[in-house]
Amino acid sequence: MNEFDTLIHNGVVVTVNPENQIIPDGMLGISGDKIALVTQREENVPLPRALNRIDARGGIILPGLVNTHTHLPMSLFRGLADDLPLEVWLNEHIFPAEAEHIHPESVRIGTLLSCVELLLAGTTTCCDGYFLEDQVAAAVAETGIRAVLGQGVVDFPAPGVPDPALNVSTAAGFVRKWSGRCETITPSIFCHSPYTCCPDTLVAAKAAAAEAGVLFQIHAAETRGEAGMIVDPKGSSPIAHLDELGILDQHTLLVHAVWADDMDIHRLQLRRACISHNPDSNMKLAAGVAPVPQYLTAGLCVGLGTDGCASNNNLDMFQEMDMAAKLHKVYALDPVLMPAESVLRMATLNGARAIGLDSLTGSLETGKLADVVVVDTRSTHLTPMYHPVSHLVYAACGSDVRHVFVGGRHLVSNGSVTTVDTGSLLDAVNTFCDGITTQRSNP
Amino acid sequence: MNEFDTLIHNGVVVTVNPENQIIPDGMLGISGDKIALVTQREENVPLPRALNRIDARGGIILPGLVNTHTHLPMSLFRGLADDLPLEVWLNEHIFPAEAEHIHPESVRIGTLLSCVELLLAGTTTCCDGYFLEDQVAAAVAETGIRAVLGQGVVDFPAPGVPDPALNVSTAAGFVRKWSGRCETITPSIFCHSPYTCCPDTLVAAKAAAAEAGVLFQIHAAETRGEAGMIVDPKGSSPIAHLDELGILDQHTLLVHAVWADDMDIHRLQLRRACISHNPDSNMKLAAGVAPVPQYLTAGLCVGLGTDGCASNNNLDMFQEMDMAAKLHKVYALDPVLMPAESVLRMATLNGARAIGLDSLTGSLETGKLADVVVVDTRSTHLTPMYHPVSHLVYAACGSDVRHVFVGGRHLVSNGSVTTVDTGSLLDAVNTFCDGITTQRSNP
Repeated sequence: MNEFDTLIHNGVVVTVNPENQIIPDGMLGISGDKIALVTQREENVPLPRALNRIDARGGIILPGLVNTHTHLPMSLFRGLADDLPLEVWLNEHIFPAEAEHIHPESVRIGTLLSCVELLLAGTTTCCDGYFLEDQVAAAVAETGIRAVLGQGVVDFPAPGVPDPALNVSTAAGFVRKWSGRCETITPSIFCHSPYTCCPDTLVAAKAAAAEAGVLFQIHAAETRGEAGMIVDPKGSSPIAHLDELGILDQHTLLVHAVWADDMDIHRLQLRRACISHNPDSNMKLAAGVAPVPQYLTAGLCVGLGTDGCASNNNLDMFQEMDMAAKLHKVYALDPVLMPAESVLRMATLNGARAIGLDSLTGSLETGKLADVVVVDTRSTHLTPMYHPVSHLVYAACGSDVRHVFVGGRHLVSNGSVTTVDTGSLLDAVNTFCDGITTQRSNP
Repeated sequence: MNEFDTLIHNGVVVTVNPENQIIPDGMLGISGDKIALVTQREENVPLPRALNRIDARGGIILPGLVNTHTHLPMSLFRGLADDLPLEVWLNEHIFPAEAEHIHPESVRIGTLLSCVELLLAGTTTCCDGYFLEDQVAAAVAETGIRAVLGQGVVDFPAPGVPDPALNVSTAAGFVRKWSGRCETITPSIFCHSPYTCCPDTLVAAKAAAAEAGVLFQIHAAETRGEAGMIVDPKGSSPIAHLDELGILDQHTLLVHAVWADDMDIHRLQLRRACISHNPDSNMKLAAGVAPVPQYLTAGLCVGLGTDGCASNNNLDMFQEMDMAAKLHKVYALDPVLMPAESVLRMATLNGARAIGLDSLTGSLETGKLADVVVVDTRSTHLTPMYHPVSHLVYAACGSDVRHVFVGGRHLVSNGSVTTVDTGSLLDAVNTFCDGITTQRSNP
């Protein structure tokens, strides 16, 4: 009889458990959708029997990565426009492309594209906010990736919500529809920002999220100019504005939070709000450098995210970890800041905590869901290996991932996704995107 | 009869020629060691005949990348120690490891490891400075990568040069030995820095380089504290110090050049000295942010480099491009700075110019050496593709490289290096590095 459905062996297990335990020559057993064993292999003892046995070939067995901020369908606009002032990029490229090309079928293929990219690069959970989120959810469910999904709320007509008066009720309807519907999907509400949602909208949306007991996501304090774009007679900072409206608590995820002064940080600390830090996007759009070391000192929970593909331009959380570790070191001229272990925790367990899933995923511990990644280290760029965590943050990239399990399902096997026909998907995306015109000043 | 030895077709050719020409459905012919054809394929005309035909599968054909700063054997110390104050990292980890473990045989396998990593990730030329450079050169020659190599000069005993009085003569001897010896190797002289070489050493080494007509490489102005470490009664900045000694000219490559004020930039401009910009290393070691946009405005030639693997921790020039583009945007809060086209040029033609090889390599033009890379874009993270240059800088990584030619030799074929038995090499490196002990405060 088999002891486990799957046994992964012959790898170093990076647990991200409370002790940051690292197990050389470790093995991990999966039964059903859960982790049933995490231990070191004993010498001269045969491996436990399992239906599916995965040899990690001396590589690294780690928790699936958690991407706390995506706009899944936007991979259709990957590299459509770059190196432009933010308002030109948004108003002349991204918004027109969304208005013309975002509809249920394009949302489906864009979402599939992003989910396959995420899975192939070792992300097992993402937290998304977009429009037509019902179609996003259906596509996400096809792929098997775990996701927190929020229907977008803005005070102007949006794809699928032509009447802004219905923005909050549509988002609340999405939550009702997707509650308990699919094991891997957790619904949420996503207000776009304090400058695209008026106070009444923000308060109503937060009330709906609180009533349903779901995560409330919002972009906030992304750019230096954002405060000036908020309709607020007091002229508060974006974070103060949200706090004064009662939006901040431990079930609110602030995305970006780049511009926060000491008072803002104190408010976040008091309310125990969580942060999604998106260094690649903040750098590419020149939004600024978020005070992440100060957030960590204040005891805030910070996860990592890629943001949408149009401002990154990929969804590789390994690159995001590398960027996060290095950006804050150079910005503060302090090489000790943001050590690899801390950054890996942001990309796994703390990301899961920021989106409310840390009791289920984010670390390799028995009883948790089997969201597990195997990284192949048998390559020149990962040899030698003195410290697996250093390699994960500073040397590896998404293409080093060989196997991915989500809730015990083997979604990436030997570098290929098992739930989607990737070739057909790439063809469909290319055909669709051929219709999207683009210009570039200096080709 | 075959028109070409090799024909690469069915790809978009990113030439990096003076017009930044991009050729959709392009093809590139190689005869002997040179590029013999770069053109668009005509409809309904059969492909030219060739001994070796490479289908780029709709991907990108680009010039081989030029890494302007490496310490090749240091890949043996990849991830040995991270996240430490610079002096602890150097004095307690890197210097002791070098003193104990750097000898001719380890230099050989470390160099092979780095060269294979570089080739697999699309780098066809590197510029290296280290000790025991004679062994470095022999290993480099085995792999077939193009390289500018400089024997290191410091005023204290170093591996292979126990008597510092012989530092310059040893370096000059290396230049004599390797001049005209191997087509792919160009010798050079590498003074470590103005704080490890006294003025007499710097002047003598530069004189030797000038006499031999070779590149003079030197780390300079890497950290804020460097000025204080230079023995100079005038207290000049590192760049002023070098200028006053007559070291700066267009055959001098300043590596890092992070701390340069307007006066320093004016000196560099006047002398037409070249810069190797190493953003990943500068970020990881928290050295600082080099004023690269100002260098470009001043018309200086800036190439990109990874630095040694111990401070990066890989040799992936695609990641270096991404980092360079994004770091300067966020640092100046200007998303228009360092556009993708400019960064790609730094990683190819301008890098070649910085190390004196731009008449031979760095762009795809007929008559130049056939240093060519094919990137596979048939993957989720490179789909769709609106602009190939955007993808190269912002979305691709080294593992997307499928084919690499250096001087017409097919050194990477379908993702595998043809000149080195990679499996045996990895085994040898692992066996060697098992003997290197390491510690980590928080594993």
